[in-house]
Amino acid sequence: MKNTFGNSVAVTLFGESHGEYIGATLDGLTPGIEINPEYIAHMLTLRRPAGKISTPRKEQDAYKIVSGVVGGKTTGTPLTILIPNENVKSGDYAPMQTVARPSHADYTAQCKYHGFQDSRGGGHFSGRITAALVAAGAICKCALEQKGIFIGTHVKKCAGVADREFGDLPLDIQTLNQKIFAVLDDESGERMQQAILTAASQGDSVGGILETAIVGMPQGVGEPWFDTVESLLSHMMFSIPAVKGIEFGAGFALADMTGSAANDPFRMENGKVVCTTNNNGGINGGITNGMPILFRTVIKPTPTIFKPQATVDFATMTDTVLQPKGRHDPAIVHRARIVQDAASAIVLCDALALRFGTDWLH
Amino acid sequence: MKNTFGNSVAVTLFGESHGEYIGATLDGLTPGIEINPEYIAHMLTLRRPAGKISTPRKEQDAYKIVSGVVGGKTTGTPLTILIPNENVKSGDYAPMQTVARPSHADYTAQCKYHGFQDSRGGGHFSGRITAALVAAGAICKCALEQKGIFIGTHVKKCAGVADREFGDLPLDIQTLNQKIFAVLDDESGERMQQAILTAASQGDSVGGILETAIVGMPQGVGEPWFDTVESLLSHMMFSIPAVKGIEFGAGFALADMTGSAANDPFRMENGKVVCTTNNNGGINGGITNGMPILFRTVIKPTPTIFKPQATVDFATMTDTVLQPKGRHDPAIVHRARIVQDAASAIVLCDALALRFGTDWLH
Amino acid sequence: MKNTFGNSVAVTLFGESHGEYIGATLDGLTPGIEINPEYIAHMLTLRRPAGKISTPRKEQDAYKIVSGVVGGKTTGTPLTILIPNENVKSGDYAPMQTVARPSHADYTAQCKYHGFQDSRGGGHFSGRITAALVAAGAICKCALEQKGIFIGTHVKKCAGVADREFGDLPLDIQTLNQKIFAVLDDESGERMQQAILTAASQGDSVGGILETAIVGMPQGVGEPWFDTVESLLSHMMFSIPAVKGIEFGAGFALADMTGSAANDPFRMENGKVVCTTNNNGGINGGITNGMPILFRTVIKPTPTIFKPQATVDFATMTDTVLQPKGRHDPAIVHRARIVQDAASAIVLCDALALRFGTDWLH
Amino acid sequence: MKNTFGNSVAVTLFGESHGEYIGATLDGLTPGIEINPEYIAHMLTLRRPAGKISTPRKEQDAYKIVSGVVGGKTTGTPLTILIPNENVKSGDYAPMQTVARPSHADYTAQCKYHGFQDSRGGGHFSGRITAALVAAGAICKCALEQKGIFIGTHVKKCAGVADREFGDLPLDIQTLNQKIFAVLDDESGERMQQAILTAASQGDSVGGILETAIVGMPQGVGEPWFDTVESLLSHMMFSIPAVKGIEFGAGFALADMTGSAANDPFRMENGKVVCTTNNNGGINGGITNGMPILFRTVIKPTPTIFKPQATVDFATMTDTVLQPKGRHDPAIVHRARIVQDAASAIVLCDALALRFGTDWLH
Repeated sequence: MKNTFGNSVAVTLFGESHGEYIGATLDGLTPGIEINPEYIAHMLTLRRPAGKISTPRKEQDAYKIVSGVVGGKTTGTPLTILIPNENVKSGDYAPMQTVARPSHADYTAQCKYHGFQDSRGGGHFSGRITAALVAAGAICKCALEQKGIFIGTHVKKCAGVADREFGDLPLDIQTLNQKIFAVLDDESGERMQQAILTAASQGDSVGGILETAIVGMPQGVGEPWFDTVESLLSHMMFSIPAVKGIEFGAGFALADMTGSAANDPFRMENGKVVCTTNNNGGINGGITNGMPILFRTVIKPTPTIFKPQATVDFATMTDTVLQPKGRHDPAIVHRARIVQDAASAIVLCDALALRFGTDWLH
Repeated sequence: MKNTFGNSVAVTLFGESHGEYIGATLDGLTPGIEINPEYIAHMLTLRRPAGKISTPRKEQDAYKIVSGVVGGKTTGTPLTILIPNENVKSGDYAPMQTVARPSHADYTAQCKYHGFQDSRGGGHFSGRITAALVAAGAICKCALEQKGIFIGTHVKKCAGVADREFGDLPLDIQTLNQKIFAVLDDESGERMQQAILTAASQGDSVGGILETAIVGMPQGVGEPWFDTVESLLSHMMFSIPAVKGIEFGAGFALADMTGSAANDPFRMENGKVVCTTNNNGGINGGITNGMPILFRTVIKPTPTIFKPQATVDFATMTDTVLQPKGRHDPAIVHRARIVQDAASAIVLCDALALRFGTDWLH
Repeated sequence: MKNTFGNSVAVTLFGESHGEYIGATLDGLTPGIEINPEYIAHMLTLRRPAGKISTPRKEQDAYKIVSGVVGGKTTGTPLTILIPNENVKSGDYAPMQTVARPSHADYTAQCKYHGFQDSRGGGHFSGRITAALVAAGAICKCALEQKGIFIGTHVKKCAGVADREFGDLPLDIQTLNQKIFAVLDDESGERMQQAILTAASQGDSVGGILETAIVGMPQGVGEPWFDTVESLLSHMMFSIPAVKGIEFGAGFALADMTGSAANDPFRMENGKVVCTTNNNGGINGGITNGMPILFRTVIKPTPTIFKPQATVDFATMTDTVLQPKGRHDPAIVHRARIVQDAASAIVLCDALALRFGTDWLH
Repeated sequence: MKNTFGNSVAVTLFGESHGEYIGATLDGLTPGIEINPEYIAHMLTLRRPAGKISTPRKEQDAYKIVSGVVGGKTTGTPLTILIPNENVKSGDYAPMQTVARPSHADYTAQCKYHGFQDSRGGGHFSGRITAALVAAGAICKCALEQKGIFIGTHVKKCAGVADREFGDLPLDIQTLNQKIFAVLDDESGERMQQAILTAASQGDSVGGILETAIVGMPQGVGEPWFDTVESLLSHMMFSIPAVKGIEFGAGFALADMTGSAANDPFRMENGKVVCTTNNNGGINGGITNGMPILFRTVIKPTPTIFKPQATVDFATMTDTVLQPKGRHDPAIVHRARIVQDAASAIVLCDALALRFGTDWLH
């Protein structure tokens, strides 16, 4: 279904980096959800380039909701968000970019779209499109909080610098959701930003690891085949540009563990079944067990760098060298975190609506 | 859509570990694909428990195809495979298992199915169901080979022992597809199996990492949002029991790389665009670039172990201790590899059919 | 998605008329639904050829459920029904039928499947496949009755003879569901059967109109775009071989009515909103209004007749004349009625599960 | 999937009658399709109220395409069309309409959306939304014509007056596509319009029958189960407000025909297989046979009339009488015809892309 994802709650994305609007349509929301404009604006702000470590392109992200909301509440019919592309300098880009930027989608877009793709600023492949996903996800995330489900993501690692581990999850999530640079340990965050600036000064870029925690999910959501909660979340996460890996719970570390160390023992706590450890990240057999959902993604280094790179011109099918110009981020990991939150919220709303019906948020 | 996955080519799974049949329906196959019974049988054999390191349950996996094939060729209409459960000893299991095996789906199944689930041998959550997925995937994998697309998976790591890196991919894939214990370096394989036996002797289990390589995929397949090739493959892989992580290309190692090291430079080679490195695993912007697709999954240690484990009885909602009995694998990583191949083949057939039409295999 | 239909509750069909099995997989059923074998057998009996007016092929339809049921109740995981093809005389049919039977799918199957289709007895296009749909639908229909939702269909018209109009719907539905030849007025039914026999004696066939009534549906189910209840039901009904038209409520008669005559006035009755008339067939704006759902389909005359027919041989691409042999029905309208009931039940279960969640039947 | 329909080519609809924008996102179009603004504007004009027989609300339908088109050609990524609601007089409607207009969606919307629906002007249920569907379908229809596939619809019947039968289909289609009031016989058209005016003068409304012909479709498109061409088209058509029935080929008349009269004999013509008659409307077994696709829909009389009507106030749950005010059409059948064309075009593009791949239009 390509640019639409979800079953009961679904999101459709559209737009290009240098087009008039980017946008998203969110379908299947429970009617009567209160729209919190500050909440949406806050999440869009967290996604926006900020400070020395980000590109100078500063969009206001003055989104507007053009359908699906009346009197500040969702109607239950499709909610469409438009975000105008204000600060576009098309002159930075040739009308058709035929020199493929390595590890960008220029060449694969050419293979798929035969030269008709919008190549300005990455077109439909641009990270800019995630602004619409964030706005849509903000509505879902805010609604989930009304049901006691909270989502937060920190930069677990960036440019070789690690953040501290998650501790008190509800508290950590609350803290992270207020931070521009989402780390649990600010001193680590400072060092990360320093490392990003160092890479930038060398014309280079860095990547990192994002860790997301979700608390408050009810048990019994998800499917054994094929719509496991891991399947749904990973399907969505791999749509976020630059994500190249995802792991749940202990993830790849499980490869070096024995079963006796890896298994999460159950026990009763206040009349509720809980796990003593959470190596499975809140999901057993594809279905939520009531423990926090935990996953990590890897964000590859921003492919645009300020060093000459060997590549090809696919118009002439010849080798060439690319010397990038324009404005770009030496890192996006700190911005991608809010995309991950938003994207997760949409997936959870869909899974919950399928499980409990379209009125589940009432 | 739960137990059905795919758009143009789709697979539906059904069955329980101790039911009469497990099975799969494969829909949307190009008509006229030759069915190779030896190929299917070979793949089923590779999935089956074998040798000292696996459970004594030895199914013949005497599958039969009951629809969609006439004269040894696909008709283009749904192909259903049935595999009888021959060697069932229901006595090993209580009619309703209310003591939740840690890190199994017993408790989450209870939350979702309210006690109506088939709990014998894991029911619909059982790894046994993957036999049907393997049979279905074998048909796809065999068909892909007619188009020059080859898939192979090795046990990259198991119980702390690493296999050698991939080298000559087409050759390595060919070799792996003949091996019972799929390693590139047999000496490493011996040490892995020894480590598995050691764990087994301690009543414990181990996990590992599987690495899959796919060569021959045409460029321009996949979507930017939301059906990236990574999204489609990961959605499927997280359906395989025990998979808790997936990474493409350099994967999580990208977190510690700079852009200049991570980017895959393009160059011309024999009139074709290739990449000098393949840190993106053959996928840029969600779309194949013609380079080999490379991904790794982590397989958690088999949750069934022969040590007492703290857990709960969800019938009485009380703490208890589980002492497992019956027959189980101290490792499944070496068996899961063929499931990963099969599952990949189904995903690729769907993506190719969407791109090139339902006759694409002619 | 082809041979799978539905979102939360979905059915997958497979099999060919002369293959080993036909079957259906029903996914997404609420766990704990009691399976009533007599109910299923009864519905299969109503679909089976019977009496002088039907083909001598008499299948026992000895279905078996091979997954998704434990202890006589649904598990919530996919329920697969297999029906063996017992009474197959392949000798009646050439291995490859290249003389296209007019108004059958022989020629279009050739265009789509390039000669690889199973042409024996209509293959996957055969009305025989509806036996699996009936078995699957029987489970849904029986479950709906537990929630007070009842479905019944009568032969409204056949061979120029009309049945009486629906009267007391709950009573009429109850009566119809016990009848082999489903008419409200038995005398009309006798005349219909006589007319069918007359057509048969002339080597010809007849069609008819089926009218389905559904009582007890809750209000507020369905969508304005694109999954209106009419859209969902019609999508399903046009899968039933021979259906060439569908109309809801007053249907095509609305073309000759004025708005003042066609509109269904609302009024309160026992604290509930009802309509004084039901020209909209229980659906306004695509959504149920609580009134009975009413629709009619037209069943074309069985295309197989015992008269010479002009046609082509698509192997040689030449004109030829077809002289049919074998066993066939001079009418299927009286058998299709139970298919329509079963198919409706599946659609309603899906719509209700989407609306009220997967546990809606508890 | 609700407000999204289609698999390879899909359309998503959003907006409310009195919101800022209505719109549509068209996904999966072959890249490089030329956008013809005159073509789109022309189709929007044909949908717009015109002349004495339509409501005075005159929108300019000044649509804009905000994504998916560069240099006047489709990029292959989602194409979003926005149409502003210019001529909105919200004062005509109370903020929340609790008196249910008979045969409108007011009451069912209340049941589904619990009072949060946008009730101004019918909200998301409004026929106004079809303007976005028409714009999206215009792009598809124009593209289909490049491949020799032409679609046209006439008002076959309105207010008791019948148009002449289709004759030379390609010519008739060409003629219809230029007409404001789409009839084949202008004299009949005059009488229809007169009858509409007469109904209007009596405060009443009328309905009618639309007949659509599609020529040039290749053979072998569609599926036996469940995505028959009839299923796909009917699913879409029943989304168009006021459609209450659909029939293909001879349709309901087949009920009174014998098989020997109803069957469409095949014969060779210029090396091509054709049918002598077309009672099956170009579809056998759910799959196109290369003959023209023919179907008819019934459009119910516009439910808004200027006579007092018994109804309920669902806020107070009491009986009441409705006396409608505002601006409304005494008939919409002549406007709905272009919606039917547009909607058909989208369905066909999807079916063709699934069959022949995403590049099929090149």
